[in-house]
Amino acid sequence: MSASESPLARKLGSFMPLMPDELRCVAELESTRRSVAPRTEIVYEGQKDHAAWLLLDGWANSYKLVPDGGRQIIGFPIPGDFMGLRSILLRTSDHSFESLTDAVISEVSQQRITQIFEDLPRLATAIMWGTSRDEAMVVEHLVSIGRRSAIERTAHFFLELGQRLALIGRVTSNGFACPLNQYVLADALGLSAIHVNRILRQLRERGLITLKAQQVIILDLAGLEDLAGFDSGYLNHGHSGT
Amino acid sequence: MSASESPLARKLGSFMPLMPDELRCVAELESTRRSVAPRTEIVYEGQKDHAAWLLLDGWANSYKLVPDGGRQIIGFPIPGDFMGLRSILLRTSDHSFESLTDAVISEVSQQRITQIFEDLPRLATAIMWGTSRDEAMVVEHLVSIGRRSAIERTAHFFLELGQRLALIGRVTSNGFACPLNQYVLADALGLSAIHVNRILRQLRERGLITLKAQQVIILDLAGLEDLAGFDSGYLNHGHSGT
Repeated sequence: MSASESPLARKLGSFMPLMPDELRCVAELESTRRSVAPRTEIVYEGQKDHAAWLLLDGWANSYKLVPDGGRQIIGFPIPGDFMGLRSILLRTSDHSFESLTDAVISEVSQQRITQIFEDLPRLATAIMWGTSRDEAMVVEHLVSIGRRSAIERTAHFFLELGQRLALIGRVTSNGFACPLNQYVLADALGLSAIHVNRILRQLRERGLITLKAQQVIILDLAGLEDLAGFDSGYLNHGHSGT
Repeated sequence: MSASESPLARKLGSFMPLMPDELRCVAELESTRRSVAPRTEIVYEGQKDHAAWLLLDGWANSYKLVPDGGRQIIGFPIPGDFMGLRSILLRTSDHSFESLTDAVISEVSQQRITQIFEDLPRLATAIMWGTSRDEAMVVEHLVSIGRRSAIERTAHFFLELGQRLALIGRVTSNGFACPLNQYVLADALGLSAIHVNRILRQLRERGLITLKAQQVIILDLAGLEDLAGFDSGYLNHGHSGT
């Protein structure tokens, strides 16, 4: 996988230009490829001394279950994202990761991470930048559920997803492929599946965005950003950002 | 400030025993004490190349504003907590920090953090553990607002706060001092102030917990944990944890 094809290299490259030895390390991290089926558990809540995983292809989600059977989806890892990296330090994972589609993942041991911190501190900083960005997304997600209306938070969600996919070159001129169904969206947005359906219809009827046949088409980007009150500052802090 | 009095040393000491040179570094981090009045802005959203701050005494909150004037409180730093440490890597802070009461804070520059990573890697790991724990709390907060009822999330909130304060020795046998009023609680819990009042009354009438004259008294810990579905696993991952 060349640097231009590697989702991790593309992502980290938006934070800082990667040097040849750093690109070699990224290629090595991506070399132990393992294919998994949809709904494969990758890290589970309460798992001890787990490894981190790098998502190379496909979609995943991270979530936490509540005692009554409800589920809150924390986020949707996309290619180039680490899964379970933060919780390595907690020794026990505080939430779960599962594939949503056919996916390709690569295991990254705690020892390997420690070694990168020792040998390639610039690359380690870039990886930590990615983790900080993931955390900024969780904060934004909290703001959405706590203080944005159902339609605002749904608009915000698709705008964020589009920017993340753009960073790894997975958007077309007016949209992107998106396998997330109404049940998954409901558990991410803190809504019911029926409510999500109604909101998606409203967004379509307002001429802002459509989700059909696993394809998101953004009809009116400025209108969607205006509705969501979207400020992408929390996503773009690299050398090429503002 | 001796190790037993230092909130940061107490907190990190629950993760791993600190060595003399590490304790000296913590004491040094706490040595540049600065008193601030209530509602002093410490780090603001969008601030570039800011320092991190260590809270030594008093209460603070971190929050994000939405365009319509609403506010979502992300968390409440207590003594021993860093503020703005994660966003150092993002170069721009993705949210704001403000004191809630009279408080004492200490500035920690980016250079100082980098130096700790180079000179005292064990201490750096403990600090990163603290940051990971903060992030696990944001995740849990998201779960609360997305998938717990108003009374469940309020119960969960006070249980978490009690465990955090216990770690730095700020609880009595049955409760703790708490300056948070209904407006602040509302912006943290994604509720209205009136709704918070009603929930607090219900919790009191059920004989679970009271908040009066800035004092939280836990009347029935087991009952409160049962109502909240509280599992403290995300807070306790140190050597003295489970």
